[in-house]
Amino acid sequence: MAQTRHDVSDRVRVRRNPTRGHYDRASIDDVLGRGLLAHVAFFDGRDPCCIPMLYAHFGDRIYIHGSTASRAIRALADGAAACVTVTIVHGLVLARSAYEHSANYEAVMAFGAFELIDDEAERLAAFEAFTERLLPGRWEEARQPNAQELKATAILAMEIDEASAKIRTGPPDDDESPDAERNVWAGVVPIVSSYGTPVPSPGLRPGIPLSPSVRELLQNGP
Amino acid sequence: MAQTRHDVSDRVRVRRNPTRGHYDRASIDDVLGRGLLAHVAFFDGRDPCCIPMLYAHFGDRIYIHGSTASRAIRALADGAAACVTVTIVHGLVLARSAYEHSANYEAVMAFGAFELIDDEAERLAAFEAFTERLLPGRWEEARQPNAQELKATAILAMEIDEASAKIRTGPPDDDESPDAERNVWAGVVPIVSSYGTPVPSPGLRPGIPLSPSVRELLQNGP
Repeated sequence: MAQTRHDVSDRVRVRRNPTRGHYDRASIDDVLGRGLLAHVAFFDGRDPCCIPMLYAHFGDRIYIHGSTASRAIRALADGAAACVTVTIVHGLVLARSAYEHSANYEAVMAFGAFELIDDEAERLAAFEAFTERLLPGRWEEARQPNAQELKATAILAMEIDEASAKIRTGPPDDDESPDAERNVWAGVVPIVSSYGTPVPSPGLRPGIPLSPSVRELLQNGP
Repeated sequence: MAQTRHDVSDRVRVRRNPTRGHYDRASIDDVLGRGLLAHVAFFDGRDPCCIPMLYAHFGDRIYIHGSTASRAIRALADGAAACVTVTIVHGLVLARSAYEHSANYEAVMAFGAFELIDDEAERLAAFEAFTERLLPGRWEEARQPNAQELKATAILAMEIDEASAKIRTGPPDDDESPDAERNVWAGVVPIVSSYGTPVPSPGLRPGIPLSPSVRELLQNGP
């Protein structure tokens, strides 16, 4: 059932421009399903840190991973309070007034704490999800992680139970203002993300063709 | 003079893959000059928060802005410790092993605290920088902010004195490993950002042509 604004916790409620706030899991999963990077903020004991990370999500959890030797991963595995933000930018919003200039974007913010995943089946499922998130179909093409790689990798998960999506779409906000009489173009310039021509690794053995996963990615686009 | 790794503070030093770390202002300014969004992390008294924001930078400072009524802006203006991260993703790094999959990216992390800017000349210069950051040439085309808009806008600045840029470029890391013998394509799929066809605002007066700034943007690309 979709949450209403009244059900949501104080820390996730969107106050500025409240009509941009969405709290239902479908909206949140939709953004998480299209983002590539998360920015993970946490307090490392002395400072707030904000680190870009690849992520995956399935079930009710957001997964991240990193070296078991990483300071950030250790702090997060210790249960440091965290905020995970996934942002996708869609366009430049060009108004007649400088003040109304903006960007169209979608951003999910999820609050909570990560926990270290010990269960080997869940760890492997997360590893698969990270790989598939980067490139659908890649898990079956790539060599899957061996015992040493699994040991070196910490996999952390956070429940998606306090989250919001903030979404700005559409034209600039000054269509109805006296500024609309001005002699200046206003509208949106879309920002489009696409894939370029694949660059083979210098060490790629001769005669190895593009993987099916890559061919399909190039056909489908982001 | 370029900083060496030994000059940099503990919190900015890149520990994992240290050769990816850069500490000189030229590298940092270069990334800040090409990013569009910053993710700003701070502790709001109860939780870490990570908020995507438009930004600008000039002189030795990163500038952000927001409504004087915004909780986040108020917390940051009160001097909350902050981390500003600007990330640009350039490609999917596809290795033979799932473990070596990665992304090519550049990320600047800057630590410090914001202060509220009172000086009207600096506030106006920041407003211009925000507008020009979004679209070079736009400041002179748009209606510049009036007294009421300036009053409603808090402009905050943070010194760029503790910052690092972490940059991953190039092919996957398994060219030299036994995995290179595997029968699977490896390399980089570039992620390319470009601008789409401008969408005029529904309220745009008939007969107003695209602004010169937008025409130039489309010619030059991101």
